[in-house]
Amino acid sequence: MASSDLPVPLPIPGIRLGTARAGIKQPDRRDLVVIELAENTTTAAVFTRNAFCAAPVIVAREHLAEGAPRYLLVNTGNANAGTGEAGLRAARECCQALAGHAGCKAEQVLPFSTGVIGEDLPVDRITAALPAALAALDANGWDAASWGILTTDTHPKRLSRTLEIDGRTVTLTGMAKGAGMIRPNMATMLAYIATDASVALALLQASLQAAVAASFNRITVDGDTSTNDACVLMATGRSGVVLQEDAPSLRAWQAALTELCEELAKGLVRDGEGATKLIHVDVTGGDSEAECLEVAWTVAHSPLVKTAFFAADPNWGRILAAVGRAPVSGLDVQAVQIWLDEVRIVSAGGRDPAYREEQGQAVMARDEITVRIDLGRGAARARVWTCDFSYDYVRINAEYRT
Amino acid sequence: MASSDLPVPLPIPGIRLGTARAGIKQPDRRDLVVIELAENTTTAAVFTRNAFCAAPVIVAREHLAEGAPRYLLVNTGNANAGTGEAGLRAARECCQALAGHAGCKAEQVLPFSTGVIGEDLPVDRITAALPAALAALDANGWDAASWGILTTDTHPKRLSRTLEIDGRTVTLTGMAKGAGMIRPNMATMLAYIATDASVALALLQASLQAAVAASFNRITVDGDTSTNDACVLMATGRSGVVLQEDAPSLRAWQAALTELCEELAKGLVRDGEGATKLIHVDVTGGDSEAECLEVAWTVAHSPLVKTAFFAADPNWGRILAAVGRAPVSGLDVQAVQIWLDEVRIVSAGGRDPAYREEQGQAVMARDEITVRIDLGRGAARARVWTCDFSYDYVRINAEYRT
Repeated sequence: MASSDLPVPLPIPGIRLGTARAGIKQPDRRDLVVIELAENTTTAAVFTRNAFCAAPVIVAREHLAEGAPRYLLVNTGNANAGTGEAGLRAARECCQALAGHAGCKAEQVLPFSTGVIGEDLPVDRITAALPAALAALDANGWDAASWGILTTDTHPKRLSRTLEIDGRTVTLTGMAKGAGMIRPNMATMLAYIATDASVALALLQASLQAAVAASFNRITVDGDTSTNDACVLMATGRSGVVLQEDAPSLRAWQAALTELCEELAKGLVRDGEGATKLIHVDVTGGDSEAECLEVAWTVAHSPLVKTAFFAADPNWGRILAAVGRAPVSGLDVQAVQIWLDEVRIVSAGGRDPAYREEQGQAVMARDEITVRIDLGRGAARARVWTCDFSYDYVRINAEYRT
Repeated sequence: MASSDLPVPLPIPGIRLGTARAGIKQPDRRDLVVIELAENTTTAAVFTRNAFCAAPVIVAREHLAEGAPRYLLVNTGNANAGTGEAGLRAARECCQALAGHAGCKAEQVLPFSTGVIGEDLPVDRITAALPAALAALDANGWDAASWGILTTDTHPKRLSRTLEIDGRTVTLTGMAKGAGMIRPNMATMLAYIATDASVALALLQASLQAAVAASFNRITVDGDTSTNDACVLMATGRSGVVLQEDAPSLRAWQAALTELCEELAKGLVRDGEGATKLIHVDVTGGDSEAECLEVAWTVAHSPLVKTAFFAADPNWGRILAAVGRAPVSGLDVQAVQIWLDEVRIVSAGGRDPAYREEQGQAVMARDEITVRIDLGRGAARARVWTCDFSYDYVRINAEYRT
């Protein structure tokens, strides 16, 4: 098995991508992406749990339940969220228009939108640009598409992984966008991943859920869950490799999928609104994974911890206070230990006797830092990723509409 | 019954306060406060639920359990938190020193600390300043004391209420400090309230808990719970009015106490770090108070909602998205309605048809705003208070130690 980071995403046989300029929000930017799936591609997806989910999420769920998607239609610049019945009609009209051009059923098109919440989707502009997007369909279209799905991200996030299974090469390629769980008036984490392995639908859905649970569902920029989040996994089968349940090859492929999702997820945090640092929060020694996660999220969401990382200030009292307020019962603070990378800063309920401020400062100067918190009472662990909290977060979110 | 806001706090017979300069963190500021309680005063208190609670919290709880406190000893500039066994010894030494001067038992002194986490308490400087604080004891000492307990608050918060019971005047006076649930390296919301009514201890504790649940436990600046939070209620009985369980006079006094705590709590939020606006989040129409609170906290903690208030941007999509991600099950988004003061912005799952952006902008220009969210499925309600989220929050918290 070989695994490699690649600057240009590898094509996936059976998948073509086309990008066009529809003028949805800005006049001359790539804002419309069509992804074409070869026949017999299986498609799994997970969506936001936000009760106010956007119209395209509702329609995509419905269409996915009908089976056999052949096209994904993605627009940026408008989230089509908080738009009620009119929003649902707009999403369906776009699917119908694409189906008309492509000669498939509207139910075989899954719609995705990202951008401003609460404005009407400009259906006419989207349908007018569909022919151009379809004409641009290309197996090497990942690069243009990874730009075309962005909102205020500063750069695209995309990645390929390859592995050898039974003497054949299987490829995974993915792209994602989103610089916050939700953007200023903008919504959405979107991720599209394709592979040329053949994977039955139930297995593909389970694989995607396992990968997402360990990656996209473990990141936070601001704790605000979008109305439009979606992650799609497509398996074309064109490599000739069939992945069966419980086979070692499935486990190898699952590991590559999870690692690819993890890298994309970390890429989103690194490009988080105003972020200057990627912070790993690694909680060990818990009674259960659930309690480790509670502690990890409490630290990862703390505005005081996040501003301390921005200031490169080894302000361990804030981490300790966040651990102490996490909703876990019976925590013995005497048993808790906290490290910044290799430096132990807290033990026995307070500052580690051997800790010196210079050690903490040296770690805080780094642009990728691991906070490890050992709860000292079990063998469970959990990890999440967050970023620091800067003036630019406030600027981006306060000034976006003005 | 009469109720009035007073610029200078009213004295409470049986309570004297003395303030001194101990040079704990800054050379020439009032940083030490002693509060003397007349014999037979009953004292109730509630403390932080943070597992990493500070040494003075542990010691104050122990001493309170022994009964009959005669003195409260409050220092600012050092939280004595995250200081382990040495911190406990330091807190006890301070109590012992005060007891020696005052001729009471060390267990009759309750210690409170606020300030930097993780530095050793300068016991010598505190004990050296005790004679000056004791010499300054005065029934009119509330004003100086309300300054003496501050950390980086911009102004003191203190308040009196009077009510007539059986032809006698009963007075309540309170003061509080804290501009965040936790400060940059600084900890603590502290509040001290006294009354000259006579209230049995169990009843006093229940009254305090009811008042705190509806006031201090309903505010957030940054969601970070301090290691040092404490709120103390002292009843001297010197008015001659005895409050009995289930009496109408108790209900009137409880209402005045709760309202006084609510005003102090709102004062803390108004003076929250970087805050420019006080936001009431009022959730109605829920199945239970618990689910109303979940929704209210989710909105009140959302960095995106808080930055929108700072920007005076009627960005209703962010409020809608926060409501949608609140941990309540089975929410029917079609039934949800959202108002900014008198303007309905959301109905039937999206923007209210009658809503115009200018209306929202007019509300957002105000410095005190109510967000009302009606869940449309029950009769329960809950209210919390928060503030907006500004550049200054990041500045205060990023630059405090540098």
